[in-house]
Amino acid sequence: MLNFDEQLFLKLVEQEGLAFRGQIEEIVDGIAKKGYSNIFLIGAGGTIAMMYPYEYILKSNSTIDVHAEIAAEFMVMNNRHFSKDSVCIFTSVSGTTQETVAAAEFCKERGATTIALVAERDTPLTKIVDHCITTGSEKHSFDTFFMLLYMVVFRFMYNNNEFPQYEQFTKEVALLPRAILDAVKAFDPKAEAFAKEHKDTDYHMMVGSGNLWGNTYSYAMCILEEMQWIHAKSIHAAEFFHGTLELVVEDTSVILLKGEDETRPLMDRVERFAEKITKKLTLIDTKDFAMEGISGEFRKHFAVSINWSVLSRISAYLERERNHPLTLRRYYRQMEY
Amino acid sequence: MLNFDEQLFLKLVEQEGLAFRGQIEEIVDGIAKKGYSNIFLIGAGGTIAMMYPYEYILKSNSTIDVHAEIAAEFMVMNNRHFSKDSVCIFTSVSGTTQETVAAAEFCKERGATTIALVAERDTPLTKIVDHCITTGSEKHSFDTFFMLLYMVVFRFMYNNNEFPQYEQFTKEVALLPRAILDAVKAFDPKAEAFAKEHKDTDYHMMVGSGNLWGNTYSYAMCILEEMQWIHAKSIHAAEFFHGTLELVVEDTSVILLKGEDETRPLMDRVERFAEKITKKLTLIDTKDFAMEGISGEFRKHFAVSINWSVLSRISAYLERERNHPLTLRRYYRQMEY
Repeated sequence: MLNFDEQLFLKLVEQEGLAFRGQIEEIVDGIAKKGYSNIFLIGAGGTIAMMYPYEYILKSNSTIDVHAEIAAEFMVMNNRHFSKDSVCIFTSVSGTTQETVAAAEFCKERGATTIALVAERDTPLTKIVDHCITTGSEKHSFDTFFMLLYMVVFRFMYNNNEFPQYEQFTKEVALLPRAILDAVKAFDPKAEAFAKEHKDTDYHMMVGSGNLWGNTYSYAMCILEEMQWIHAKSIHAAEFFHGTLELVVEDTSVILLKGEDETRPLMDRVERFAEKITKKLTLIDTKDFAMEGISGEFRKHFAVSINWSVLSRISAYLERERNHPLTLRRYYRQMEY
Repeated sequence: MLNFDEQLFLKLVEQEGLAFRGQIEEIVDGIAKKGYSNIFLIGAGGTIAMMYPYEYILKSNSTIDVHAEIAAEFMVMNNRHFSKDSVCIFTSVSGTTQETVAAAEFCKERGATTIALVAERDTPLTKIVDHCITTGSEKHSFDTFFMLLYMVVFRFMYNNNEFPQYEQFTKEVALLPRAILDAVKAFDPKAEAFAKEHKDTDYHMMVGSGNLWGNTYSYAMCILEEMQWIHAKSIHAAEFFHGTLELVVEDTSVILLKGEDETRPLMDRVERFAEKITKKLTLIDTKDFAMEGISGEFRKHFAVSINWSVLSRISAYLERERNHPLTLRRYYRQMEY
C-alpha cells in the first residue's frame, strides 16, 4: 500500500501500544484509589477531536462526570467543574502544541492530576504532567493513541464498577492492530478510487454521529482543510436536517461515516435522504470490515479506530493524486498571530 | 427598517417577555425546592444552538451539572447522567419540531421534569411538558426566548446560591429590548452594506467563541445554509488555527462575532491573523453597542441577545438583495426522509 509500512505499523501499534497496558492500569488504579471528582479531556484540533469519542463513550456507558474541552477556551472560561480533584487527560504528537502545553501547565498548577499521551520523547508536555505515556514515535501516533485511550477510559469505568468486561475488552484491544490492518487493506482500493474521482472536488460534506462525530469533525478540518486546502463542512447526522441539507444537489460530495453505536439510525436517515439527491455519495461503514476476533458487544467502540485508519488511506491517495503534500502549510507554525 | 416593526417588537419582547417573570420564578423555585440532579438543555438546529450560550454561562458561573444535547442523539445514546431527577428544557417556535417533541415525550415518560418555551399556542410540545411558557407569537420568538432563558437559567443559579445579583439582573433584563432596538438601529446600515457587498459571495467563514459559539454555529447553518443556500463554515475561535485558517486567502469572507466574555482574547487572536490575510473581514462586535442601563458586569451575558438581533438584520437584507426568501426550502418539511 502507498506510504504504509505494515511491519512498522504492527511493531508500533501492536507491540508498543500494548506494552503500556501495565503502566496505564497502574496510573488509573492509583487515581481511582485516591479518588477524583471528574475527568477533563483537553486538546486542540485533532487532539480534542480524538477525545470526543471517549467523551461520548463515557456519557453513554458511565456515570463518571466527563468534560471534553478545547484547550484555549478551557483556560479562560473559568469552568466551575474543574478543581484540584479533576483528572485531566491530554494527547499530543509533538508534545509541543502550544495550547495543550499551556493547558497542562494550567491544570498542574491548580493541583489537578494530569496524564498525557505523547509520541515524541523529552518534550515540554512530557515534562509537565504527573503521568506521561511516551510512545516514542510520530508514525501511526493517532492509531496508537486511540488504542491507549481505550485502555485508559475503560479502566476508569472498570474501577467505577461499570465495566466488569475489562479483561476481555483488553484482550480484544490486543487484536485491534490486526483488525485495523485488515480493514486498511480491504479499503485501500476504495480510498484510491475516491481520491482519483475527487481530486478536483473543492467541497465535501462530512456527516457522522455518536462516537464517530470526533473523526468527522477532525477529518474535515484537520485533513481536508488543513492538509489538502479543500473546503469541508462537518455536520452531525442529527443536525444535518436543520440547515445543511438545503445545499445538497446532484453533484454535491456527501461523505457518510457510519459506525455501529446507538446513533446509527441517525446516519441511516441521512443516507436515505442523500441517496435520493446526490450522485456523489460516499459511504464509509465500519460494518464492511471483519474485525476478526472482536466480539459484537465491543465492535461499536473499536469502530472509532477502524474508521480513522481507513480515512487515513484516503489522505495518502489525495496527497498523491492532488500533488499536494499533507505536510504543506500556508500559515500554521509559519507565521506569528 | 426593512421588515422590522419597532412597536410590535417592543410589545412582544418587552411587555410580553417580561410578563412571564412571575411564572418563570414560580416554576424554577418549585423545582429547586423539590431538588434535581442536573439540567438538560435539548434542541435541534437553531434551538440547540440557542441553548449553547446558556450551557457556557452555567459552566463558567455555576456548579450546576448541565448538558446541552441534540434531541435526536440524546434519545438513542442512553446518556447515563439523565434520570427522573433531571430537569429538561426545550424551546420551539412552532411547537411541532419533530425531534424536540419526541425528546420531550421521552423525558416525560421517564419521569424527568420538563419545561418548554413555545411561541405557538396549543401545539404538541405545549401539551407534553410539565411547565410551558407559551409566548403566543412567532414574530421575534428567538429574541423573546433568549430573554426568557436568561430568567430561567439565572434563577436556577440564584436558587443554587450562586447568583445573589438576580434582582438587579432581572431589572436589566427588562432593559434588554430597548438595548436590542438601539443596537439593531445602529447596525442596520452596516447590515445593508454587508448584504449588498456579499450578495454573490458563495462561502463565508464564521468564527465565534464562548457564549457566542451557539450564534456562530446557528447563523452559519440555520440562516446562511438553510435560508439562503450559501455555504458557510462555523469555526470556534480556539479551533480556527487547527485547520480552517489554511483556506483563508485574500478574498475569503471571514465574519468574526465578538462578544464580551472571558473568551474575547481568542477572538482577538483570530482577528490579528485574518486582518493580515483577507480583505473581506467583517467584525460584528457587541462592544460597539451602547446597551444603555446594562451594567458592565452583565454586558457579556446580554451580548448573546444583542449579537443575534443584529445578525438578523443581515438576514433581512440578504433576503432582499439576493431575492431569496428566508422561508424558501428545497427539502425541509417538503419531502419524507
